[in-house]
Amino acid sequence: MVKEMEQTPPAMQETTDGASQWLTTKIKSLIKDIPVDVTLWDKRHILGGIQPATAHITIHSRIALLKILIDPELYVGEAYVNGKLTIKGDLVTLIKFWGSRDVNDRPGLGYQIRKLIFDIRANTLSRAKGYIYHHYDISNDFYKLWLDKNMSYTCAYFPEPNMELEAAQVAKMEHICRKLELKPGEKVVEAGCGWGALAIYMAKHYGVNVQAYNISKEQLAYAQEQAKIQNLSDKVQFIEDDYRNISSKFDAFVSVGMLEHVGKACYPEMGSVIHRSLTPEGRGLLHFIGRNYPRHINRWIRRHIFPGAYPPTLCEVISDIFEPWNFSVTDIENLRLHYAKTLEHWLVRFEKKTDRVKEIFDEQFVRAWRLYLAGSEASFLSSRLQLFQITFTRGTNNNLAWNRNHLYQMDGLNM
Amino acid sequence: MVKEMEQTPPAMQETTDGASQWLTTKIKSLIKDIPVDVTLWDKRHILGGIQPATAHITIHSRIALLKILIDPELYVGEAYVNGKLTIKGDLVTLIKFWGSRDVNDRPGLGYQIRKLIFDIRANTLSRAKGYIYHHYDISNDFYKLWLDKNMSYTCAYFPEPNMELEAAQVAKMEHICRKLELKPGEKVVEAGCGWGALAIYMAKHYGVNVQAYNISKEQLAYAQEQAKIQNLSDKVQFIEDDYRNISSKFDAFVSVGMLEHVGKACYPEMGSVIHRSLTPEGRGLLHFIGRNYPRHINRWIRRHIFPGAYPPTLCEVISDIFEPWNFSVTDIENLRLHYAKTLEHWLVRFEKKTDRVKEIFDEQFVRAWRLYLAGSEASFLSSRLQLFQITFTRGTNNNLAWNRNHLYQMDGLNM
Repeated sequence: MVKEMEQTPPAMQETTDGASQWLTTKIKSLIKDIPVDVTLWDKRHILGGIQPATAHITIHSRIALLKILIDPELYVGEAYVNGKLTIKGDLVTLIKFWGSRDVNDRPGLGYQIRKLIFDIRANTLSRAKGYIYHHYDISNDFYKLWLDKNMSYTCAYFPEPNMELEAAQVAKMEHICRKLELKPGEKVVEAGCGWGALAIYMAKHYGVNVQAYNISKEQLAYAQEQAKIQNLSDKVQFIEDDYRNISSKFDAFVSVGMLEHVGKACYPEMGSVIHRSLTPEGRGLLHFIGRNYPRHINRWIRRHIFPGAYPPTLCEVISDIFEPWNFSVTDIENLRLHYAKTLEHWLVRFEKKTDRVKEIFDEQFVRAWRLYLAGSEASFLSSRLQLFQITFTRGTNNNLAWNRNHLYQMDGLNM
Repeated sequence: MVKEMEQTPPAMQETTDGASQWLTTKIKSLIKDIPVDVTLWDKRHILGGIQPATAHITIHSRIALLKILIDPELYVGEAYVNGKLTIKGDLVTLIKFWGSRDVNDRPGLGYQIRKLIFDIRANTLSRAKGYIYHHYDISNDFYKLWLDKNMSYTCAYFPEPNMELEAAQVAKMEHICRKLELKPGEKVVEAGCGWGALAIYMAKHYGVNVQAYNISKEQLAYAQEQAKIQNLSDKVQFIEDDYRNISSKFDAFVSVGMLEHVGKACYPEMGSVIHRSLTPEGRGLLHFIGRNYPRHINRWIRRHIFPGAYPPTLCEVISDIFEPWNFSVTDIENLRLHYAKTLEHWLVRFEKKTDRVKEIFDEQFVRAWRLYLAGSEASFLSSRLQLFQITFTRGTNNNLAWNRNHLYQMDGLNM
């Protein structure tokens, strides 16, 4: 339904009508498979193809709309954060439907051209141009508001989907320890340890000695404090350094939620680090956000949340990190829906604390994080993103389990 | 230790001694890390670097030795089958050590050149030039002599390594059914069904309707007979046709031990067949011999056992079969040592029946099969070969299990 504009000269009216009609038609075609209604700055109201709508978008300026039509991947997010586009209703479902439109499409020529332009600009202009809403050195207080009590900022594991987040984060750590078949006294190295939850869990529950690497001061300070509180400072050593400086040999190498930030160009080097760090019968586990086919990260995310991040395909990881060193993949598990569930929990917890977040930061920051969390949840639900855990060992290691029973034994644990 | 030759003219003696010395030195360097001793046609005896030796090789002619030195990958097998090289002792360990020498090496220039020459010849000369010792239309009676009673000619699954082969083949079929989460009444298609064991198992134990494709008349005749004997002809349809002619939609697609024979060039087509054959929530499983890094199949195997076979890396399969169709890998399991164990059983059972095999065929046939079975076992033990089971589904399928407990429940089954 289109309401005509009033009080415009006849000739311009025709041109304006033509342009308005074109915009309306364009919007209608974009939302033909989405349960959303759209209202424009001039009160024009356009119904989506699926009714009843579960969300309502208002676009407050013509320029914002034009940018969105030219490059929705980047400008929907920009407009939302800047308040030029507001959304009422179910944000996750909206983004999920939006993302599902072309989940089976391969990037076409238009996409490739925009990406090329974006990449050139990204490499030549200062990154400060796009404000980064996310970095690990934002005060721990912000993350404490909505993460679980152990500050695990990676995909949890929900063997029962109705588990609480706290239990699911513990289940994730347990699952990883079992995949690594940790034994008391072994030496483990963790590349990218966050706030230390996994390193501490491994030492406490499996009696291993852990060296955990991280380049974030804020996170490390917290981790060291936690180890001290739990009397584990002699078993867990937190090291403020790049994981590429790992020396010494370890029985196990683990990296959770870091590969996405390493960058494809550095995968061969990572393989080399793993190769020199593992004993002959050493085991490894990589846990990372990935894809079913190669595609770079959403450009709004790359500009404002994770510059330089890249979610790889299984192929990209296996060919560049494992193949050169004859590593054997022993187990791969895809926990895609577990990440959707994790983000569902984070979004609910975040929304309960937005007043507090606004006090620390501002309204734009709240909107950016809301969009990032909701968009990520939608991406996992619509299969744009996957979550892979790859367990591996040296090809020449014949000391292997004959089955995966040990991953699923009850032993009094909530598995 | 080298015994000098006698009764040769002095000048020739010097040349002969020089050549002999060179041969001896060359052999010594080849066996410096292998527990084997070598005796040559002239009674020269050369000790291997690891003592005591667990095997003893005799090379009966100079020409055979020269060929072996030029191209061991091809000519050790040729000489062995032709009786120009005999081996006493532990054949598997010998081949394992031989194969381990360069398991971490990437094929160098010499290898690439020999491979190029081999490939050119293979494509231009009649394949009849190299006698094929293996084909599925060899009388079923031959395979019945040493396979398990269900005639499963693929890797068994030994959750307990001391299981009998019969139980392990049943466990393999059960494991596959559980990975596919089969439910009564569902439709399943099997691409490359061998003698029908899995198709019949799925119908009998899971109540599914199966269409099973195979191009081998002998195997299909046997399979149809088995289905009839077990009153399952109404649930299992054996179809003598290429799997690429699959039509209709199925809840599950399974292929065990066939991908190695499809050939890399046909992977995109295979992906296309799977894509059009699966329902929106359909699941698939590929079970195949693979590698940790790209390398073509042993050339003696390719000439005499499996022309056209290729064991792919995980990457080659995922990039060509899954990525183009947005399939999600949900689970990968590496059963390498299970195949070594399966071949260990087959070799023992085969050796008990060599008199009978010699009656049906001849001595050369026996040696060729012995070398193939022992060499394969050694390849899995030394990690030149892997065994992958990939479970997958459409990227857009959100009806997924939250854990893998169902694979490991006891339910009275030997899991």
